[in-house]
Parts: sequence; structure tokens; C-alpha cells
Amino acid sequence: MPPFEVPEGDPFGPHNLPYGVFSRAGSPERTVGVRLGDHVLDAGAAARALGSPYAGLLAQPTLNPLLAAGRTAWTDVRRALTEWVTVPSHQEAVAPFLHPLPSVTLHLPFEVADYVDFYSSENHARNVGRIFRPDAADSLTPNWKHLPIGYHGRSGTVVVSDTDVVRPSGQRKAPTDPAPVFGPSVRLDIEAEVGFVVGVPSRMGQPVALGDFREHVFGLCLLNDWSARDIQAWEYVPLGPFLGKSFATSVSAWITPLDALEHARVAPPERTHPPLPYLDDSAAEPGGYDLRISVAINGHVVSEPPFSTMYWTAAQQLAHLTVNGASLRTGDLYGSGTVSGPAERERGSLLELTWNGRDPLELPDGKRTFLEDGDVVTLSAWAPGADGARVGLGEVTGRIVSG
Amino acid sequence: MPPFEVPEGDPFGPHNLPYGVFSRAGSPERTVGVRLGDHVLDAGAAARALGSPYAGLLAQPTLNPLLAAGRTAWTDVRRALTEWVTVPSHQEAVAPFLHPLPSVTLHLPFEVADYVDFYSSENHARNVGRIFRPDAADSLTPNWKHLPIGYHGRSGTVVVSDTDVVRPSGQRKAPTDPAPVFGPSVRLDIEAEVGFVVGVPSRMGQPVALGDFREHVFGLCLLNDWSARDIQAWEYVPLGPFLGKSFATSVSAWITPLDALEHARVAPPERTHPPLPYLDDSAAEPGGYDLRISVAINGHVVSEPPFSTMYWTAAQQLAHLTVNGASLRTGDLYGSGTVSGPAERERGSLLELTWNGRDPLELPDGKRTFLEDGDVVTLSAWAPGADGARVGLGEVTGRIVSG
Repeated sequence: MPPFEVPEGDPFGPHNLPYGVFSRAGSPERTVGVRLGDHVLDAGAAARALGSPYAGLLAQPTLNPLLAAGRTAWTDVRRALTEWVTVPSHQEAVAPFLHPLPSVTLHLPFEVADYVDFYSSENHARNVGRIFRPDAADSLTPNWKHLPIGYHGRSGTVVVSDTDVVRPSGQRKAPTDPAPVFGPSVRLDIEAEVGFVVGVPSRMGQPVALGDFREHVFGLCLLNDWSARDIQAWEYVPLGPFLGKSFATSVSAWITPLDALEHARVAPPERTHPPLPYLDDSAAEPGGYDLRISVAINGHVVSEPPFSTMYWTAAQQLAHLTVNGASLRTGDLYGSGTVSGPAERERGSLLELTWNGRDPLELPDGKRTFLEDGDVVTLSAWAPGADGARVGLGEVTGRIVSG
Repeated sequence: MPPFEVPEGDPFGPHNLPYGVFSRAGSPERTVGVRLGDHVLDAGAAARALGSPYAGLLAQPTLNPLLAAGRTAWTDVRRALTEWVTVPSHQEAVAPFLHPLPSVTLHLPFEVADYVDFYSSENHARNVGRIFRPDAADSLTPNWKHLPIGYHGRSGTVVVSDTDVVRPSGQRKAPTDPAPVFGPSVRLDIEAEVGFVVGVPSRMGQPVALGDFREHVFGLCLLNDWSARDIQAWEYVPLGPFLGKSFATSVSAWITPLDALEHARVAPPERTHPPLPYLDDSAAEPGGYDLRISVAINGHVVSEPPFSTMYWTAAQQLAHLTVNGASLRTGDLYGSGTVSGPAERERGSLLELTWNGRDPLELPDGKRTFLEDGDVVTLSAWAPGADGARVGLGEVTGRIVSG
């Protein structure tokens, strides 16, 4: 009998191996962990015990050194980890470094450099257009099909899953109000997104080509871009979202390496407008990812946004982000934008799910237009793996507390 | 005769003492320097030689430890430095640690955490409104007088003065073009701004009150928010500026502590709209700073924007930035927004100075609408000190190179 075993079909089996950072009860020391089933492997301690050359990358308080190490190292480290948890002789050696998940504290797994958020779901953008500009001839802005629209967010308020989110206060003004009023947001929303984590930096003045995506991006995670719609509506013209978003952005404790998602790669939707050459992926390998997201409020699933429907891919977003010469740093994070599928129950925000509050959701604990204090929102997801296996993404959850 | 002397009237005399980070020829080691006239004092080495308790804050490769140390430490360190460079016995001791400015390399003085840019000059905002929305009833957007509009920029491309700026490429589309085209920006512009540097962090969920500005903000510098107007115009609806700004933001090599600018504090312009309580500074000490900025292209002064005309103060900007609970980190940087005075030759951007290219500037080397390759833009400034003295701000300069 092997020293440990992950149940057949577990989405966090040895085919997955996402990375995080944890500490153990009674010790403030943080170190890189790898999730295996309902355990976390102290990867640095295991590497040391096995005399692995990767101990220096793994016995670290953040993922940043591993992120910076680059594609070859990422592949080599993953291969080594896979051996450790699957080859019986290695299993013996690493078993002492497996800790039950409930016994550890998970931390923000990497130091976030710049945080950018995109807006790349056509369904989401069209829903927003129909809600806020019902009389417009086209529900998309004229630039939407020509570039992945994005903006910078606040990296200092990116928090790990399970961090409480304080309801933000701010200015809001309904069109009928004579002047803005100040108070806690009354239209607090979520945005179900996928976040991409940059490992390898780039030089200022040198764009990253579409084909170099996998050389720079290490992996992905779920991301909830909490949004105060009332604050956002009053502030965002002409320079975009600011305080309506900057109070908190939650990410999974686990970063799934792209290498674990090879079987989830899919072609993006057909492009209705030919992109400019730096964004043209028509001859490239499939740039989409088939991630099946689930949004739950207080444990009740309200939506299942399909990431495969995103119009702009993560590779196109990275090529766009850098085409002006903006450099990348290790730890840069960029969000896909709210993921919304074409169906009503595939929408990634309450704004869309309730059509701006017009059609409240019926939850077991009552109706919801926007979030109430005490509400717990959880995003989870899985992707197809080899031979019918599922690759689980670390969930991202957060509870709303009053300010 | 003292071991060194700064000429009478030098704007970088002992009354100023801005902080930077430098390295010496042949050595990669960076350390905190304090500018004195045309020399830089190796502050850490001087502190060690004098047995000062501040050596630990100053013998550092960035200003971040000093920034994080807080108001009391800032005042104490400044008092010590003032003694060292003015009391003859101390002068003897620190003289060996003074290096001529041309002999050192200046570096980005702090690690930038989040970078936010505001839009707080009423003259600038009205000029932009008149240029782009000539038919609007009001040249300001409805929110402008109620809150300091701001957005997040890219902190990874904040560079120190004297760094070349590569002309960015990107998409642009004139209203008459059938589709966007790609290429180097043909409307590359500057924005003359003042940047504020946050030292002391704040906790998530806890706003920083107007009156706590000086507990959190260490000092200021000049900032050039390079802007590609053509890229910006096509991309910015609905989520604000992105690639039109993210390619580079230049800051001075010297951070002037607020303590050096006590004599430059002035009341801001009269508020035409009563601000909400969290922004109401009517009973506060003067929140404006009388900084006389000068903008030169290839050595020819084209504008002299007066910072005293800014409608929203740095304290109001900080209170707004955090009112939703967004936390501060050591090294956060926020720009004032383009500084434009009421007069034509007080405008802080070429967009305004040439009225969107309609009225080219006549320079000794030819006409300019926007920047050409090889152009060198330099922002400099001074502020009134005690007894008619001038407090110089470190200049910020950059040369445009082709991409």
C-alpha cells in the first residue's frame, strides 16, 4: 500500500499540482506548497529531503522566485513534483511533508506587481451595453472588436481567497439626485474572472509577441473583481473605474500552471472582425481555455460561466498589453474580464444576472439584487484533463462585512 | 574656512536636502543620497561615520525603509542631516562622503507600489473638455467638482529622470478612418505633474482622513506622465487610459520631503461647490503648494504651470483614494494630474499648448505640435522657502527615441 493516495477522480490529483503558499499553525513562516487532494505538500522541505536542485526555488515565502525562473524550470520542477508524488520510492520520502489542508493557513501566493483587468467577454460587454446604453445602435463600443479593452487596477488590494471584503463607502449619484451622496455602496457586485500570472519579465520598449505567451505566463487562477456599481457609475467618466473596484480583488490560493491545462486548450470563438497582425491568432495554436466556472452565493449556485466563450484570449491580451513597449515584471497579474456565456444562467455578474436589479435572484435565503452583508460568494471551476479527468482550479471565496 | 560650502541662494542648499538613490562609477551598489548643491552626500556612510542611529534607514538601496519609518523618524533624520551639513564639527566628519553629482549615477529612488494619476487642475480639465467636447454645455464632466477624478497607472514603467522614452506603437483611428491602423504614435505628448510619495501604509477597510495626509505622505517630486494622444483617443471609452499612458512615466531622481516645503504651503482656489465632509478642507491648514514649474523642450521654455492653481489638493486626493477602504503601501505614488494655469503659457501639455495641434509652438529648432524623435523634455520647479530662499525640486527629463 502506497504511503498516500488521492482518490480516483479527485480534481486535485497528481495530474494537477497547483502551487500556493502556506504556513503551519504556530509558525509565521511561509513556504511554497503544492496541493495534492486534500493535502498540501511542503515543496521546499520535500525538495531538500530529496536533494533536489529545485529546493532554492521552492523553499521560499512566495512563488515569485519560481515564477521568475522561466518555462524550462517550470517544466522541470513540475516533472520532479510529479515523480515525487507518484513513484513509490519518492512517495515514501515526501510523505512526511504532506499536511492536511485544514491544518494550514493559505496566503497570497505571489507578490503582485501590476494588476490589469480586461473586458474580453463579448456576452458581458453586450449585456453591459444593453443595460446602460439601451438606445445605442450597437451594444459594443466601436473599439471592442479591434482590441482587448483593459485598464490598470490596484495591486495593493489583491487578496487571497477567504479574506473578508469590507463593503466600501463612496460617492454615488442617481441621475435624479440633485447632488452626490456619501455612504456604503448599495450595489455591491462580483465579477467572475480568470487571472493570469506573469513569471518572466520583459524589457521596456520591447513588445511580447502573441507566440511568446507561454514563455512569460506561468499559470492562472480564479479571480473575483468585486465591484461597487453605484460608486463606479458616478466616477468612471472620463478616466474609467477607480474606487468602484480598488477596494478589493480576490484571487485563489492556488495557481494552476498552464502545463496542467494542456487538454483544456480550445479555439476561441470565430473572429467577426479581422484583428491587426499583432493580435491575429488565426494561424496560432488554440488560445482559449475550456474552464467551467461556477458562481455560488451562500452555497447556492447562481451561474456557470463558460470561459471558452471569451472573445479575446490571454495571449492576445498579453500581446496588446505590451505592444506599446510597456514592460512586464514577475508577479504581474491580469484578469480576463467578467466571464459571461450566452445563456442567462451563464452570466458572471449580478449586474447581468439581475439585469441591473430589475429581476432579483431567488435564493434559498431570500431575494438578491446585489450583495448583502454576510453573503459569501464562491467561484470554483474545473477544466477537462486527459482521459476524462478533471483539473480543479482553486476556489476563490469572500464574505461581505459591513464597513 | 568650512570643509564645503553651498553658494548663497543655491536652491539645493541645506534648507532643502532632497533624498535620492545613487551608485558610484565602477560599483553596482546603490545607496541613499542627499543632495547638497551640486554634490550628493552618501547618507548611510555619513551616518555610520557619525555613529548615528539612522544608519540602518539610510544605508539602503532604496528609500523604502526611510519611507516606511514614519513622520517622527522623517523629522529626526532631517534634523540630523541638517546638523551634519551645517555644524562645522560635523561638516568635517561628513565631507569625505560628498560626491560631485556628475560622478554618480542616479536611480529610481524608491520601489513604486501602486501608481495612481489624478486629474485635478480645473484649467486642464476645462481645456480638455473644450478641445474634445466643444459643443458640451459645461467643459467639465458632472462629477469633476465633487471628487478628484483618478485612475490607476502602470507602476512597472515608472522610470527615473534621464531614462530615454521609446515612442510607443499602437492602434489609432481618426473618426474619418474606416478601421484602426497600427504604428508609432504620431501625437506623443507630455503631462507636467507633481508626484506624491506615500511612506506609511494604511489598513484595508480604513480610510485615511484628510488631516492625516502628513502622517502618510513623505514628499513629492516632478512627474512627466508621457501620453500618446492618438492611442488614448481610440482606446479610452469606456474603461479609461491604458496603452496611451502605460509605456512610461518619468519621475525626478530627488524626492523633496514635505518638511522642506513648509513655506510653500498655500490655500487652494476657492471651492465653487461644497465638498462632501470627507473632502471638506475649509477648516484645515492650507493644503496647496506653491510650486513654480517650468517645461522646456530642447532647452527652450514653453510653459510655466503654477501648481498653486490646482483645485483638488494632495490631501484631498489621498482621502478620496482611500475612502472606499483601499489600503496604502509604502512606495505608493500618486500624480496630481496635468498642471495648467489660467494663462496660455501656463499649460502643462502640448495638447493644450497647441490646442490639439491647431496652433503649433514656435521653437528655435522649428515648429512643434507633438513631440518628435530626439526631443528632450525637461520639467523643473522651485518653491518659496524662508526669507526669500528658493527650494529647488529635482528636474525630470527624458528624450524621445524611435521605437
